[in-house]
Amino acid sequence: MAQFLSSQTTIRYWQRVRATVPLVHCMTNNVVTNWTANALLAAGVSPAMVVEDSEAEVFAAIASALLINVGTLQTAQAQAMAKAVASARRAGKPWVLDPVAAGVLPYRTAFCRGLLNEMPTVVRGNPSEILALAGEAAQGRGADSTHGSDEALAAAKRLAVEAKTIVAVTGATDYITDGERTLRVDNGHPLLQRVTGTGCSLSALVAAYVSTASDKNEAMEAAASACAVFAIAGEIAAQKALERSEGPGSFAVYLLDALAALDGATIERRIRS
Amino acid sequence: MAQFLSSQTTIRYWQRVRATVPLVHCMTNNVVTNWTANALLAAGVSPAMVVEDSEAEVFAAIASALLINVGTLQTAQAQAMAKAVASARRAGKPWVLDPVAAGVLPYRTAFCRGLLNEMPTVVRGNPSEILALAGEAAQGRGADSTHGSDEALAAAKRLAVEAKTIVAVTGATDYITDGERTLRVDNGHPLLQRVTGTGCSLSALVAAYVSTASDKNEAMEAAASACAVFAIAGEIAAQKALERSEGPGSFAVYLLDALAALDGATIERRIRS
Amino acid sequence: MAQFLSSQTTIRYWQRVRATVPLVHCMTNNVVTNWTANALLAAGVSPAMVVEDSEAEVFAAIASALLINVGTLQTAQAQAMAKAVASARRAGKPWVLDPVAAGVLPYRTAFCRGLLNEMPTVVRGNPSEILALAGEAAQGRGADSTHGSDEALAAAKRLAVEAKTIVAVTGATDYITDGERTLRVDNGHPLLQRVTGTGCSLSALVAAYVSTASDKNEAMEAAASACAVFAIAGEIAAQKALERSEGPGSFAVYLLDALAALDGATIERRIRS
Repeated sequence: MAQFLSSQTTIRYWQRVRATVPLVHCMTNNVVTNWTANALLAAGVSPAMVVEDSEAEVFAAIASALLINVGTLQTAQAQAMAKAVASARRAGKPWVLDPVAAGVLPYRTAFCRGLLNEMPTVVRGNPSEILALAGEAAQGRGADSTHGSDEALAAAKRLAVEAKTIVAVTGATDYITDGERTLRVDNGHPLLQRVTGTGCSLSALVAAYVSTASDKNEAMEAAASACAVFAIAGEIAAQKALERSEGPGSFAVYLLDALAALDGATIERRIRS
Repeated sequence: MAQFLSSQTTIRYWQRVRATVPLVHCMTNNVVTNWTANALLAAGVSPAMVVEDSEAEVFAAIASALLINVGTLQTAQAQAMAKAVASARRAGKPWVLDPVAAGVLPYRTAFCRGLLNEMPTVVRGNPSEILALAGEAAQGRGADSTHGSDEALAAAKRLAVEAKTIVAVTGATDYITDGERTLRVDNGHPLLQRVTGTGCSLSALVAAYVSTASDKNEAMEAAASACAVFAIAGEIAAQKALERSEGPGSFAVYLLDALAALDGATIERRIRS
Repeated sequence: MAQFLSSQTTIRYWQRVRATVPLVHCMTNNVVTNWTANALLAAGVSPAMVVEDSEAEVFAAIASALLINVGTLQTAQAQAMAKAVASARRAGKPWVLDPVAAGVLPYRTAFCRGLLNEMPTVVRGNPSEILALAGEAAQGRGADSTHGSDEALAAAKRLAVEAKTIVAVTGATDYITDGERTLRVDNGHPLLQRVTGTGCSLSALVAAYVSTASDKNEAMEAAASACAVFAIAGEIAAQKALERSEGPGSFAVYLLDALAALDGATIERRIRS
């Protein structure tokens, strides 16, 4: 049985991130670099988008955590990513894999499979991506999932065990699992699907949050807390946009505002359990 | 004589796009990737920005339509684009060329000229770009046009005939022509020129719309309908921004809201003819 | 002693930019391309993001000014930038260096040091970057400064003399110095630090402003005027966002609105001296 993430746990990790201002090294796709940086800044995190081969290797050891997102993967970037992952591991820094559109496209799928051997701290994906990485014949539609998160939970657990990682499969319900224990987050809003890069920036936020964890159990709670914080901010932004009869453009703006304004009392009041 | 696009035609293609949610493979410039993805999502289209050589070839055959935009063309991207275009053609998928700043800069101009042999379904450009592609000594100022669309209509017609394509030359008036028949769209607002990537995202929307067409005549109506939808959303967004004494930042946000909120009644009421 | 920039001087350069609509060739990092283009458009400047080797060389000679920003520097981009700088110099066009995260990362630091031999018209950086370029063992945190601008003023002066350039070191107070004379701008708002790319787009605006200068003294005034214009727009945007209990998302939107709406009377009323 998946266990609801508590408000106390979420608030604890939210406070840690606010107190430490993690420096997250984002190696991400070229559609969402700006949005990811702004989402992290709003959430009290310091983003850095270092891409060059040698610099990425140096910086991955300096940063608090590393994000690898394969949304627009190309050869040079893949090489730099591999070096950065190795460097983060040597330095004992957590790293998060976002396997955008894995299962749809061959090059990135193979690359992500290879990276699963590098002990990612967390793999954060949509249901179709997680199903594909777990070896099931799932296929999304571009970067969009064609499955619900419930359908991918068993695959997420198996993938977590096989790759000795934490898998966060996100959708209407988010499940965060290490294969044995599973946390669930039921917050969120469909408008999050109408803005590009929300999943990608959530993965970057997960990297920030797990940088404050001291062991795998904490990493699972931290990853789930990032999902909850992002989903709650999404609810607040959606409520404001819909009250004003506005749409995805305004929602995206309010999402940044809500990430910045979040506090413990709001988390306490909003979290579903 | 150019014929006004009717509201019924526009509504028909708008409904088709809403019903089918086309998957548009965007190979575009790195200034507008995020904005293009958000504009497509707002308009009910599913964007995918696949760039890597082998993946682009695979994906162009899967997607509903392909967009080629040369705004920040580089060698590796040009090679991947060529493969994607060939793949789209083999799969019978429509593709749209946006020749950003053709005529100003030599590398992209030569590349665009080459692509004209690959039977683009539509070429969507500003007047200076269309004049340049048609072989006239026009020159824009960077990505901006220094000509009105009326000045480019004759060139657009000639280009359409020579390249056996549809040319959409957009400005205060948009003309969509196959060289024999010409449709015109008179909607729009000057604030559209104050936000980067509006033309680029219109080209992506044209790709989505032509994916719902079953022959060349329908493709012309579909392309014109995309121009009308985008221009009407621009009018709505401009009206809201100006009423509130706001500027291009707010306008861009409202443009996404307006694309999402559009419906048949609004198209009916707004379209000029 | 640093001298306050006067409102008359600021208005003079603001008017020149509005009258001439400079065409700024931006070779910048892939996090901020869209934001930079929109900030320039809002400020009445025409942006062009030309990246390809041969095109960058051609375009740097056509444009009014060139911006080099090393935020996501990679080998191919570095080569194109070197050609563009040489071309701008041959054509007598001003160019601005934004040494993002110099001192933190080795590859870009070496590249920026090399470019200091190419007579940049202005170097615009945060205090940590300027300290690092001046050879002091300063180190920022990713792209963020860990020093105040006062701490970097002496280094800025030394760097200006050694590289025969103008150095603009920006923070709570902005200092613009050629090593002998120093101008200061005390406008601005902390929310500017909460949106990615504000410093980067300020550097692009500095390039636009210095394109209207006829000698080094004017270039210093023009660079300072760009800093003042940007900082005043930041104050206006922050005031609006805070009055409405909004955050960095809304602030970024209002910043573009404020850049577009700025006029002489507002500059007159807002400038601190």
